Amino acid sequence: MITGKNYLGHQLSAKGSKTYQTFNPQLNIENDSTFTEATSEEIDEAVALASEAFKPFRTTSGKQKAKFLNTIADEILALDDELIQTYCSETGLPEGRAKGERGRTVGQLRSFAELITEGSWVEATIDTAQPDRQPISKSDIRKLLIPLGPVVVFGASNFPLAYSTAGGDTAAALAAGCPVIVKSHPMHAGTGELVASAIIKAAKKTNMPNGVFSNINSSGIHVGGELVKHSGVKAVGFTGSIKGGRALYDLAAQREEPIPVFAEMGSINPVVILPEALKNRNESLAKTYAGSITLGTGQFCTNPGLLLGVKSEGLSNFVQNLSNEIIKIEPSCMLHPNIIGAYEHNKQKAISQPRLTVTADYESDVQTNYARQAITTVEGKTFIENPTLHQEVFGPYSIVVQCENKTQLKTIISNLEGQLTGTLIADNDEASNHPEIVSALQNRVGRIIYNGVPTGVEVCPSMVHGGPYPSSTDSRFTAVGIHSIKRWVRPFSYQDWPNELLPNELKNENPLGISRLVNNKQTSDNI
Amino acid sequence: MITGKNYLGHQLSAKGSKTYQTFNPQLNIENDSTFTEATSEEIDEAVALASEAFKPFRTTSGKQKAKFLNTIADEILALDDELIQTYCSETGLPEGRAKGERGRTVGQLRSFAELITEGSWVEATIDTAQPDRQPISKSDIRKLLIPLGPVVVFGASNFPLAYSTAGGDTAAALAAGCPVIVKSHPMHAGTGELVASAIIKAAKKTNMPNGVFSNINSSGIHVGGELVKHSGVKAVGFTGSIKGGRALYDLAAQREEPIPVFAEMGSINPVVILPEALKNRNESLAKTYAGSITLGTGQFCTNPGLLLGVKSEGLSNFVQNLSNEIIKIEPSCMLHPNIIGAYEHNKQKAISQPRLTVTADYESDVQTNYARQAITTVEGKTFIENPTLHQEVFGPYSIVVQCENKTQLKTIISNLEGQLTGTLIADNDEASNHPEIVSALQNRVGRIIYNGVPTGVEVCPSMVHGGPYPSSTDSRFTAVGIHSIKRWVRPFSYQDWPNELLPNELKNENPLGISRLVNNKQTSDNI
Repeated sequence: MITGKNYLGHQLSAKGSKTYQTFNPQLNIENDSTFTEATSEEIDEAVALASEAFKPFRTTSGKQKAKFLNTIADEILALDDELIQTYCSETGLPEGRAKGERGRTVGQLRSFAELITEGSWVEATIDTAQPDRQPISKSDIRKLLIPLGPVVVFGASNFPLAYSTAGGDTAAALAAGCPVIVKSHPMHAGTGELVASAIIKAAKKTNMPNGVFSNINSSGIHVGGELVKHSGVKAVGFTGSIKGGRALYDLAAQREEPIPVFAEMGSINPVVILPEALKNRNESLAKTYAGSITLGTGQFCTNPGLLLGVKSEGLSNFVQNLSNEIIKIEPSCMLHPNIIGAYEHNKQKAISQPRLTVTADYESDVQTNYARQAITTVEGKTFIENPTLHQEVFGPYSIVVQCENKTQLKTIISNLEGQLTGTLIADNDEASNHPEIVSALQNRVGRIIYNGVPTGVEVCPSMVHGGPYPSSTDSRFTAVGIHSIKRWVRPFSYQDWPNELLPNELKNENPLGISRLVNNKQTSDNI
Repeated sequence: MITGKNYLGHQLSAKGSKTYQTFNPQLNIENDSTFTEATSEEIDEAVALASEAFKPFRTTSGKQKAKFLNTIADEILALDDELIQTYCSETGLPEGRAKGERGRTVGQLRSFAELITEGSWVEATIDTAQPDRQPISKSDIRKLLIPLGPVVVFGASNFPLAYSTAGGDTAAALAAGCPVIVKSHPMHAGTGELVASAIIKAAKKTNMPNGVFSNINSSGIHVGGELVKHSGVKAVGFTGSIKGGRALYDLAAQREEPIPVFAEMGSINPVVILPEALKNRNESLAKTYAGSITLGTGQFCTNPGLLLGVKSEGLSNFVQNLSNEIIKIEPSCMLHPNIIGAYEHNKQKAISQPRLTVTADYESDVQTNYARQAITTVEGKTFIENPTLHQEVFGPYSIVVQCENKTQLKTIISNLEGQLTGTLIADNDEASNHPEIVSALQNRVGRIIYNGVPTGVEVCPSMVHGGPYPSSTDSRFTAVGIHSIKRWVRPFSYQDWPNELLPNELKNENPLGISRLVNNKQTSDNI
């Protein structure tokens, strides 16, 4: 049941006077529930509870934390139809997507549970003492990764489950041993509260400390800012716009004690299409990309917003084919009137730039809140000269840039803002014949794809979801996959510490049987 | 030979008009050589060369980079007496320290060479394709760590070799594949230039690209600021004061493209002495700590500047013993008149605080630039109420805080600023009987020491040199040991990339024979 209240640790609370509702974009009406924005007092309480919970939670064993994560997954599944219906009513997304995203969310929780049950992720590193070393003896030193402290996670508008309340950031932070305070996304506050209730149930069932998780409502930006500035908060996770992520990064950097912010922000995900591929697969490529550009109404951070090629008959045909294919696709609903409003505004802004040709713009009538897909094209020189054309248009829109030659293509790639992904479409020897293009692309992105589409972010250890600024605020981490746990931990050394007082991960006996670097050799052996 | 010029890549350059000299604090005279501060034009050139060098250097094999690092070590040793004499004349430190630090520097370079020759440090992670997976097929995805780009390293005043020109930051960045621009420390610009010449020689001998290393002179803060703000610079390493490190962090965070700054800054390295230990080892502890406080004239970032105990006869005796012991130690020279000036100023500021007792202050005549060691003591309440007493006094000075009881001791530890180290002095069951004190200490530091001294930072994989702010700007990394390479790299994924075009680390055949995580199993096997 949705109460509209905040979870301050295990307790529901609604002391504020500011309320708001979520919106059903398919029906174009407000949903029933009313949510109460958290007050400063409630924020303080959530942070105080998290700080207190951190004391026992940071040394809670991997197996116990895994039980917590698996129980969260179970409780999310137990929400069953109520969750799916609420999700759909707050996003306009179809049931299939809701179920798929729930599967992804549950899968993420279980994969972190597996990681911490096994336990080697703490990178235990041991150098034993050398009492007789000359000229001075060497101490016994042992290192492992420990949690940073309370983490604030901002729910994402476009992934109410997988990148929100119990999404990747939360799962990774809890797995690391960090209490989490979620700043719920106002567009899907009901979905958020339901998932929060599942987390609280799981926390109680597995005896986790009160304050290990809180869920904070707010419709504006003030509450998020207060959370990031709070001295008890030690790190921040965010998925959203460049403007939003940068604002949080700036607040965190300006604190007396600066804290890390991992913000996964905008990206236009360049796709480079080489001539042979255009020659051999023009129509099928056009079809594939029309699908990728409109997938989820273009509301993915890996949406291909920029296609690059060298001016040719093949490229002209591709623009035509892509435009024909995309117009055939039925328009679909966007997440919220604000999102469709921003899409229409940004699309118009892009389309109205000088020396740009609109080759497709869905013209038939569409339902309210449905997005009209569009394709535009410009010459390389125009793209270089006009940074407005580099900006993300969040939605089913792409621009095709027709470069003068390969040198200009390389120049454009080299000067792109940082991106989550880059894709190369090539046939036969084209990839090996263009090392400079591959190299330029690699330097601007976090993930490079060969003959595929950037949409679809696999959750697996080899995935990098992140990249050079502004695709993320810290390219040294990924937001997806088990290694995203590294965002929320720090290395810590024990020197000459008594064996019996060391954490299990570092004891001579290796009671957890984990893999450790002992005197520079990776081993699971005892010492 | 010292020319006083900057190295812009392989070329010496001195276009500026601002010059300065280094100072011999033992003789209290300026040294002969004159150094020319770099101009904005020269800074631009160094960064442009580094950006150009990054293109080939970032894919240079581990073995080739290792040859470069080992040759740097060889060339540093070949500088022989000229380096040692210059070091001593610019620091006032004895020859033994110079040679010891040279050994540490050479050892660091060789340990990174070993790391990258072996090659597994890139954390290669492979998830092979599952074309038949339902509901959708899974791509082949492969990840490794790649270098960030040109790194600016700031030389440290107190470690002209091990944390400066070819010190830990530089060695780690070059090992990662990042070109390095050193902002030479003005107090030891001659030592810096000699080491820079060794690096350039090694770069030429091993065919590294021009621009892989530059050495920039400056006596003020302007040049460093320009470097950090330069769009071509992708990360910063710094060792020094909180004020200096924070200023660079702020500049980097305010850039259009923010970049990571790893600054290792101040610390007072709390030492907690429990009653039994005071009872059993009062005199020997006093002697050991008098030595640790005055080691290297107290000019170590791990100098124990704060000793904490519970008020008792044992603690009173310890303060007396420590004071007696420290007065016996012959004063020694500080690095520079500015450093001794700051020491005297900060010591006087500390000493003049209300309700503080000076129990030792070396009174006999000392040579110019020699530091008079001092010990003071206050009650816990006074320490809590006066943040001035928490500030680092860089030099041979410590304050002993006599807490009312263990609760107050725990409160003081819990509220300390972030520290590089914390030490626990305990006998018998004292450590196991005080888990809350150990836990509080662990939460504020990067390394915890049992019955030892914090001075002496072993270079080994298990070392953490770093910690919560303000001991460092990013507690998620260590500045010492092979894992410090992680500061300068980011993860990068290839999706469905042709095997022959993958880097060797990720090829099916595993030609480097490195350990990789393949389908969630760590192995050196082929695929």
